[in-house]
Amino acid sequence: MAEMMQRIVLARRPEGHPVLEDFRLEETPMPEPGAGEMLIRVVWLTLDPYMRGRMDEGKSYAAPVPIAGTMEGGTVARVVASDNPKFAPGDYLLSHSGWCSHAVSDGKGVRKLDPSAAPLSTALGVLGMPGLTAYVGLNVHGRPKAGETLVVGAATGAVGSVVGQLAKIHGLRVVGVAGGAEKCAWAVEELGFDACLDHRAAPDAKALRRQLADACPDGVDIYYENVGGKTLEAVIGLMNPFGRIPVCGMISWYDLGGLGLGEAPGPNILPRVWRTILVNRLALRGFIVTDHADRFGDFIAEVPGYIRDGRVKYRESITEGLSSAPAAFLSLLKGGNFGKTLVKVGEE
Amino acid sequence: MAEMMQRIVLARRPEGHPVLEDFRLEETPMPEPGAGEMLIRVVWLTLDPYMRGRMDEGKSYAAPVPIAGTMEGGTVARVVASDNPKFAPGDYLLSHSGWCSHAVSDGKGVRKLDPSAAPLSTALGVLGMPGLTAYVGLNVHGRPKAGETLVVGAATGAVGSVVGQLAKIHGLRVVGVAGGAEKCAWAVEELGFDACLDHRAAPDAKALRRQLADACPDGVDIYYENVGGKTLEAVIGLMNPFGRIPVCGMISWYDLGGLGLGEAPGPNILPRVWRTILVNRLALRGFIVTDHADRFGDFIAEVPGYIRDGRVKYRESITEGLSSAPAAFLSLLKGGNFGKTLVKVGEE
Repeated sequence: MAEMMQRIVLARRPEGHPVLEDFRLEETPMPEPGAGEMLIRVVWLTLDPYMRGRMDEGKSYAAPVPIAGTMEGGTVARVVASDNPKFAPGDYLLSHSGWCSHAVSDGKGVRKLDPSAAPLSTALGVLGMPGLTAYVGLNVHGRPKAGETLVVGAATGAVGSVVGQLAKIHGLRVVGVAGGAEKCAWAVEELGFDACLDHRAAPDAKALRRQLADACPDGVDIYYENVGGKTLEAVIGLMNPFGRIPVCGMISWYDLGGLGLGEAPGPNILPRVWRTILVNRLALRGFIVTDHADRFGDFIAEVPGYIRDGRVKYRESITEGLSSAPAAFLSLLKGGNFGKTLVKVGEE
Repeated sequence: MAEMMQRIVLARRPEGHPVLEDFRLEETPMPEPGAGEMLIRVVWLTLDPYMRGRMDEGKSYAAPVPIAGTMEGGTVARVVASDNPKFAPGDYLLSHSGWCSHAVSDGKGVRKLDPSAAPLSTALGVLGMPGLTAYVGLNVHGRPKAGETLVVGAATGAVGSVVGQLAKIHGLRVVGVAGGAEKCAWAVEELGFDACLDHRAAPDAKALRRQLADACPDGVDIYYENVGGKTLEAVIGLMNPFGRIPVCGMISWYDLGGLGLGEAPGPNILPRVWRTILVNRLALRGFIVTDHADRFGDFIAEVPGYIRDGRVKYRESITEGLSSAPAAFLSLLKGGNFGKTLVKVGEE
């Protein structure tokens, strides 16, 4: 019997909240690398909220995953066999092989990792795409100034946790919003946030707004937007003149898809948001981390030092085995993760 | 009997759409200028959509008009008597005296006008605050580039008409949205817009979107936002990557005031707008013209030349007598004006 590999494909497009049946685990024969190619086996798979967008049809900044196509995603992988002179068996790579156990690569778009420099999994988290997303959104589009106040949702997630800690290094007051008392305690006690509010304990946006107003006595200068929904509704009225809103994501709305499902805001929220943008002369900027690849050099020169000196901490939420990925991803979309969501697909 | 003056005060705060009963015409004794002061009589009063915001209570970039206070507004006035050495009887001034026939001024915040340089009324329109608003919003926040496409609502209004004509001078494709076939014809035939769509002829945002898509075959790079509502809903899905939205106003929503009245958008519009901001990396910036007073010198050096050579045209919608102001203002809010809305309060 031929050796087999595993992959997880998109079985169908979700309607509203994705469910396990939207995914399918497949076994296929192990691919054979051709001339100049290598066979890699996946060690770590990262799960990130943006993947929800790839499950839907329609115009976005990237093509959707086709039905029966392998789910997209970044991985840390190890070279098994190589006909590529730049890579040798045993090398560790950052790759974008998707939700699979093995893949063939021609070496394009991969980057060699030094396993002695930092834990390999950090290349998918605090020192990878989520970390760079936090860095770019805060520095390029947030333009932080010491003494200002920043609010960030999903505050203990892979991006939010780095946003808040970098903002503390810049001398800002940092207020997080997260789901659950345990996450909030960690944000304050471990990450050094000035406050962190539990949106699950706030019955509605008004209640959350009152709590945010107390936690932000000087108003809000930067709202790092990665959640939308109730948090946006609560914070918008607290924005200071000339405030900035880097728009990085909106996890609470990813399931809407124009279908009228999910956490839909009230009908007059858009006019209120629009009015606040006008009256307070706010600057909003949507951004995608891949537009800012040129900042990776600055990022990787700066942030590892913060990890070494303890000013930036991270936490990982790990499940075992490729087959655990769909459930872990669904949990991530509901805020069930605590820190960077990773799947351990194989041994390092 | 003492000589009397007239003023129009805010009788009460409107609930939703303002009505005539929200205003009151009052006669009061003519004020006496004190030392260093002058008595001025109003010639032209400008009516602008921003005044709707001043009628509501609550936080904005400027204080609301108090109940029984004179409605705020810019005027062209003439000096009647002066104890101020800088101003002589007969001088024409740009002032912010409000909706009144006469006022006392200490000379602060007024600017002398040369009646031979341009028609006096233009100091309140194309060469005044609305013109500067168009200029700043387009150039500073819109960042136009030749060959791009701009969409502007209220296309024949005091601001929109200048936005579109300046954008044509910059080499952009310009598509307006206006209310009624007559306005649309004027925008194309007189102002030189490439197209102008009648939002009253479009039954809903979807229909308007289809028409806009036809009129903007290369998508939309700049949406100069001054209307909100159906036009925003129609244009947002047509925005190109890295598009800009200067947020200048939202006349279709000024009556909402959190009361749930007016042209309320559907419940999922905010998530759709937010998603488009993210996916297309849009830059939105609310702005208030008074933040950009430093650009007035550039503006006034540039735009009068365009008027002289016919590249910028303007049109005025004039009513006679101070008492006509409330009805003219209510008409403006419903799009009943055609060009800059002015009240002729007294003879030049």
